[in-house]
Amino acid sequence: MAKMIQWEKLRAYCQKIIMTFGIPEDEALVISDCLVDADLCGVESHGVSRMTIYTKRLETKVVSPIFKVEAERDYPAGLTLNGCNSMGMLVGKYAMEKCIQRAGVNGSCFIAVNNSNHYGMASYYVNMAAQAGMIGLSGTNAPPNIAPTGSYKAYVGTNPIALCAPTDGEPVLLDMAPSVVAMGKVILAAKLGQSIPEGWALTKEGKPTTDAELGRQGTVVPIGGPKGYGLSLFMDILSGILSGAQFGPHLGNMWNDFVNPQNIGHFFCAIDISKFTDLETFKKRLSQMVGEIKALPKNEGIAEIFLPGEIESRRRSERKAKGIPMEDVVYEELRELGKKYSVEFAL
Amino acid sequence: MAKMIQWEKLRAYCQKIIMTFGIPEDEALVISDCLVDADLCGVESHGVSRMTIYTKRLETKVVSPIFKVEAERDYPAGLTLNGCNSMGMLVGKYAMEKCIQRAGVNGSCFIAVNNSNHYGMASYYVNMAAQAGMIGLSGTNAPPNIAPTGSYKAYVGTNPIALCAPTDGEPVLLDMAPSVVAMGKVILAAKLGQSIPEGWALTKEGKPTTDAELGRQGTVVPIGGPKGYGLSLFMDILSGILSGAQFGPHLGNMWNDFVNPQNIGHFFCAIDISKFTDLETFKKRLSQMVGEIKALPKNEGIAEIFLPGEIESRRRSERKAKGIPMEDVVYEELRELGKKYSVEFAL
Repeated sequence: MAKMIQWEKLRAYCQKIIMTFGIPEDEALVISDCLVDADLCGVESHGVSRMTIYTKRLETKVVSPIFKVEAERDYPAGLTLNGCNSMGMLVGKYAMEKCIQRAGVNGSCFIAVNNSNHYGMASYYVNMAAQAGMIGLSGTNAPPNIAPTGSYKAYVGTNPIALCAPTDGEPVLLDMAPSVVAMGKVILAAKLGQSIPEGWALTKEGKPTTDAELGRQGTVVPIGGPKGYGLSLFMDILSGILSGAQFGPHLGNMWNDFVNPQNIGHFFCAIDISKFTDLETFKKRLSQMVGEIKALPKNEGIAEIFLPGEIESRRRSERKAKGIPMEDVVYEELRELGKKYSVEFAL
Repeated sequence: MAKMIQWEKLRAYCQKIIMTFGIPEDEALVISDCLVDADLCGVESHGVSRMTIYTKRLETKVVSPIFKVEAERDYPAGLTLNGCNSMGMLVGKYAMEKCIQRAGVNGSCFIAVNNSNHYGMASYYVNMAAQAGMIGLSGTNAPPNIAPTGSYKAYVGTNPIALCAPTDGEPVLLDMAPSVVAMGKVILAAKLGQSIPEGWALTKEGKPTTDAELGRQGTVVPIGGPKGYGLSLFMDILSGILSGAQFGPHLGNMWNDFVNPQNIGHFFCAIDISKFTDLETFKKRLSQMVGEIKALPKNEGIAEIFLPGEIESRRRSERKAKGIPMEDVVYEELRELGKKYSVEFAL
């Protein structure tokens, strides 16, 4: 039976744990907010279940607890930032804020970031752009878990692409791994001892499997074969090759390397709608599109047609009201962290 | 038996036909070059098999033969262009050139275009960026042929996303419809009286089919279900909603409406690599990535691992040397066009 956890309590508890590494209150809030928002949206793979690995990386100092960002090249609509091995969420929020500010002047802005770390759920950053009346685009690279078409050996990560645009109501938000499922879901299933459906993952020899642990050691299946592999490759080109970060199999491993920084790369892009058309017109037209899609005739057995991000945003509202259901194993991990870092357990 | 056609002859012949509509020599060359390049790459669905419909649209003046582009909003890294119902290739080439020029000053540039027409193969434009030492990104909307997840009714098009980046050798180039196959392939199969594999398309009632004609009237299957539908939706948001063009089912039909302009939207983005890192470093690192992927261990029965765009670029070289194989039905259509527009048949 999953426990129901109040989201602000969860966020405050995680924030306190993060602060034990000397991270200031406001920065710790950004990190915990990003994690808890993933749980609110039902993306548990990118939620507080990551607290154990994040804190271990801070404790071993393989990730720097000191937030620092340096501009390496700086143009009005193009910026390369060095994340100085800081926490990925802090780097990500900073970069998207910068993007929004520059786009507000010049129409759009593209930022490439090197020397960063896992930045959580890409949605978090593109949603910032939509809140500012802009279209947001972001991606990141990640250690390899997709094999290029024709090989069984992982080379590119399940590098996500995320896009978000504002409407009169909730934004339309697509945040997708270029694989049938995110590797995070396979990892979570392995952690919970659950099996996975066939078609999600392959063993490291390239054979189909329903064993989450074997899938975790192997690769996930890209959507549309070479298309998913190609999308993932380009997320790495934009995140890793362009920024000067590591790429492909040269990225450090988050789970078992506590000596070498990962040197992850991200990219961020903001497009200021008001520089292209009237923002109100844009929102009205996109809301019309949303309404028309929701009103389409449904397949047999389908109760509702959803827009990208709609299920997550609805879940966020529900979970803010009713609590976040949490698996026992995650709950116990969080309790352990409190003990370890002398923070009173308050969930 | 397919005939083998010399590519420059084909391009010159198409150019001459296009010029009969009063289109200047240099502009007609852009249009014919874009079509022939698709045939060279093996993307026949976007090649000279489209000459009949393109010329019919010029003849009926539903597409304007006069090339004109007007800037509606103009910022250093953000531009909205009105394509003035000109030929899509002319608008596309102009927009990407503008993008490249602006990115060369400011780091990146994003351009949204309204009131345009079918612009052929998206590869053509992103490749221009790579030739200029930049990363190119482009997309377009198109009349509906993908049903949102949960419905059987088409709402979004097989709106492509194209990305291209330069290496020391051939660029890496991804140009993909967010569907298992491009609708163009189903259309071509229908034209050639061929059947299609199951899993490509659904009838207009949402049932699987291998009949290309029924598939053409129905929808194509998005990759990764909601992911492909979501990608397509965002290509329309960036191309149609942002630019002020039409979107979704409101786009005019290219094949059977010769009265109302389609009002198609595109977007273009160029990212000047030298503003982010050294161009030589970028090319070297991307070439390293390419080399590593090509050297991965292969699945049983696989002779070679390919990068996105590699098959097409290799085919281009081969076909430039040996000729473009052309189906009889397309060959005869081209002969007919020569007769119709009084251009000496020279293939």
